[in-house]
Amino acid sequence: MAEKITSREENYSQWYIDIVLQAKLADYSPVKGCMVIRPRGYALWEKIQQNIDVMFKDTGHTNAYFPLLIPESFIHKEAEHVEGFSPELAIVTHAGGEKLEEPLVIRPTSETIIWSMYKKWIQSYRDLPILINQWANVLRWEKRTRLFLRTTEFLWQEGHTAHESREEAEEETLTMLNVYKKFAEEFMAIPVLTGVKSESEKFAGAVDTYAIEAMMQDRKAIQAGTSHFLGQNFARAFDVTFQTKEGSLDYVWATSWGVSTRLIGALIMVHSDDKGLVVPPKLAPTEVVIIPIFKNRNKGEVLEYAHKVHADLSAGFSVVIDDDDQNSPGWKFSEWEMLGVPVRVEIGPRDMESGQVMLVRRDTGEKREVKAEGASEAVKELLVDIQLNLFRNALTFRKEHTRNIHDYPAFKEFFEKDGGFADTLWCGSAECEIKAKDDTKATIRVLPFDQDHHEGTCTICGGKSAHRAIFGKAY
Amino acid sequence: MAEKITSREENYSQWYIDIVLQAKLADYSPVKGCMVIRPRGYALWEKIQQNIDVMFKDTGHTNAYFPLLIPESFIHKEAEHVEGFSPELAIVTHAGGEKLEEPLVIRPTSETIIWSMYKKWIQSYRDLPILINQWANVLRWEKRTRLFLRTTEFLWQEGHTAHESREEAEEETLTMLNVYKKFAEEFMAIPVLTGVKSESEKFAGAVDTYAIEAMMQDRKAIQAGTSHFLGQNFARAFDVTFQTKEGSLDYVWATSWGVSTRLIGALIMVHSDDKGLVVPPKLAPTEVVIIPIFKNRNKGEVLEYAHKVHADLSAGFSVVIDDDDQNSPGWKFSEWEMLGVPVRVEIGPRDMESGQVMLVRRDTGEKREVKAEGASEAVKELLVDIQLNLFRNALTFRKEHTRNIHDYPAFKEFFEKDGGFADTLWCGSAECEIKAKDDTKATIRVLPFDQDHHEGTCTICGGKSAHRAIFGKAY
Repeated sequence: MAEKITSREENYSQWYIDIVLQAKLADYSPVKGCMVIRPRGYALWEKIQQNIDVMFKDTGHTNAYFPLLIPESFIHKEAEHVEGFSPELAIVTHAGGEKLEEPLVIRPTSETIIWSMYKKWIQSYRDLPILINQWANVLRWEKRTRLFLRTTEFLWQEGHTAHESREEAEEETLTMLNVYKKFAEEFMAIPVLTGVKSESEKFAGAVDTYAIEAMMQDRKAIQAGTSHFLGQNFARAFDVTFQTKEGSLDYVWATSWGVSTRLIGALIMVHSDDKGLVVPPKLAPTEVVIIPIFKNRNKGEVLEYAHKVHADLSAGFSVVIDDDDQNSPGWKFSEWEMLGVPVRVEIGPRDMESGQVMLVRRDTGEKREVKAEGASEAVKELLVDIQLNLFRNALTFRKEHTRNIHDYPAFKEFFEKDGGFADTLWCGSAECEIKAKDDTKATIRVLPFDQDHHEGTCTICGGKSAHRAIFGKAY
Repeated sequence: MAEKITSREENYSQWYIDIVLQAKLADYSPVKGCMVIRPRGYALWEKIQQNIDVMFKDTGHTNAYFPLLIPESFIHKEAEHVEGFSPELAIVTHAGGEKLEEPLVIRPTSETIIWSMYKKWIQSYRDLPILINQWANVLRWEKRTRLFLRTTEFLWQEGHTAHESREEAEEETLTMLNVYKKFAEEFMAIPVLTGVKSESEKFAGAVDTYAIEAMMQDRKAIQAGTSHFLGQNFARAFDVTFQTKEGSLDYVWATSWGVSTRLIGALIMVHSDDKGLVVPPKLAPTEVVIIPIFKNRNKGEVLEYAHKVHADLSAGFSVVIDDDDQNSPGWKFSEWEMLGVPVRVEIGPRDMESGQVMLVRRDTGEKREVKAEGASEAVKELLVDIQLNLFRNALTFRKEHTRNIHDYPAFKEFFEKDGGFADTLWCGSAECEIKAKDDTKATIRVLPFDQDHHEGTCTICGGKSAHRAIFGKAY
């Protein structure tokens, strides 16, 4: 390693940036707030895309592509939408050497351009549902940015669906929320809370916004994905009606839902440690690194043996072999730990003689000697175990830092000290949300689906409670 | 089919647009010159991406992502580059509610932003080569657009590589040209000519531009992909030097190469017919459509049998079954022919009784009855045969419309009548290129690699020839 990674304890923010830069996941670009996603970071995005895209297709969706540029007037057609997004827009005023008659905005999200097309495509219930997803770049002019977590331009997917009934659209909204939850937990090994957002935190133009929320190692929250029930808001704004089965005319019901390259930030922040990046095996572009350990006198033999093991393992896994002879094995161990490869295979002269290899897992550092011919099976088990262990650790951490809090002094003390998720009761007023935010920086992450015990007194004002609410400080 | 497709003979341009719109591959958008790629069109792009991306990775490349926006001053750093791209730029002047200090342009191509990053990443020969590809959208403000073939925004991949020697960069340029040729011929079933471009047709900023050129059914040419040897032009513009193995300092050598959604336009124009789209099996999102033929009295049995065949074939192919009972079998045959599915399986009551199915190939319309249990094997063979047949037909067509022409009256007559590829000798002067273009609209598509017989007289001016040159009218 060229440089040392700052420890989490010393400076959590710097630790995060050190990992992103030193593992070459991303870099700052000459354009303020825009990042470059380097090959190691983009490989993570490709794994995310491949796996979640299968889940989209399994739930009946197809991909399409809509224009980057949107006539400025479209953004103004939905009242809340324009209010939410206007401050963040980048505007094209000139093109082809001329001033444009109407300025174009770079999409901050695509509801408006997509619903202008849905107007063309939808006449009757026979044209419904439309279940389209788009993989694209979007742009929101942010004042404060942080690599992956908040950047002016980011990559994402945005689903936009059109339905003939409220019920069907609401069901779609929750189906996609569950796809996100499943993906976060099973692939990213990140446990997430789900629920609905309060009025102040919902998407500009939505009736209801649902989210998956994850806890980072600094106990702050990340909104890792959102699924919006849009009601008939965009259908009204773009006058998209359809002939119902009964022959009447009605506005179309809508949803939209998205996850972005922010997921990579969450992945880093949940699993990594002071040695560097830790990647859950199911999303690891490289699952195994083989490091042969040799001296000049036995180099040939050891390398031959190591390459044989490499060939065997490559049949089932994504494997690299680091047989460079400039760097010491110790240097290589640190380097590949920093890069987050889940399993290291060490092969020295003694392993060769005994027909063995040494497996070292990235998450715990635990070592295990296995017969070379059984290595594939052992690696397979190890990858499954690492995946589960990362999820278990993250879940334990979240549980340890989630507290039932029902009085305001305790609430303030919680967020002054360690913080985490405060499981509270809330009266439903925006005033209490503002007060909590002003006093502690904590906001409502979700109103969880489980509202069985929402009766009592508001943790903030002491009035009658209306909801169970999870508060946390958010990225 | 709702509407009839215009025949090629009647109006070739309208035939093309009819197919794009009626097969729902793309649609016009509210933003001038920008298209919407609909799910059926995007599915083709996904197949193209998946297959060519494997070839990029097999040749050592990795994917990354660079910002959409480029500081305007960057475009000005390379003299030819700015001259070529300035007229086509879309410019962001305002963002986040404020006027920007420096305008930003939406990338028309990414050499400049990428080389500004390579300057950060390259110090020594140890940092080379860099072999990066990007899948992205780009924008060029075009005056005249046509769905897929020329649109203001389009999707593409752009490879950008950095090397320590001229030889290595030149080799990379040709490696990628050959990847494109192989992809075009083996996957798209489109035979292509390869060679170098003349000075007037090369990329703005390149030393040499190589291209693959295909002939459409109207005998016009499409430049389907380009690979550029950039020399040290961008390294000089962005001051990217490296320490050589010998310890001296040198500018880095570069290449760039790209193919775009234009490939979909070429695919349509080469293979389709008056019935609609024809897709080569290797790129067909749906390979097989099953159409059960039933009356009310035998509907249940026939559908059961058809669904069994569907289940069997789905193990090996991408199959849909059209068991809707609103439309007649004849209507469905036309509809699925229009959509370009390579193999149709017809299953009626008699087929059921005899344990057979009828296979119909999209390219020739030929029918063949096979035993249901051997259907998978037969479909497999048929798909291979269709793929080869499409390539053979396209190659035959190109040969029939390629002519050796060595005098100017014949040249002019050729392009006045049917046209095609004129295999000529050329003196190398821009004047002759301009004269030919003014008189016939034909331009040099490539100077082919085979220059064995380039000695003689220029087809245009009669002077001493310097090159063998292929002329054609281009899209």
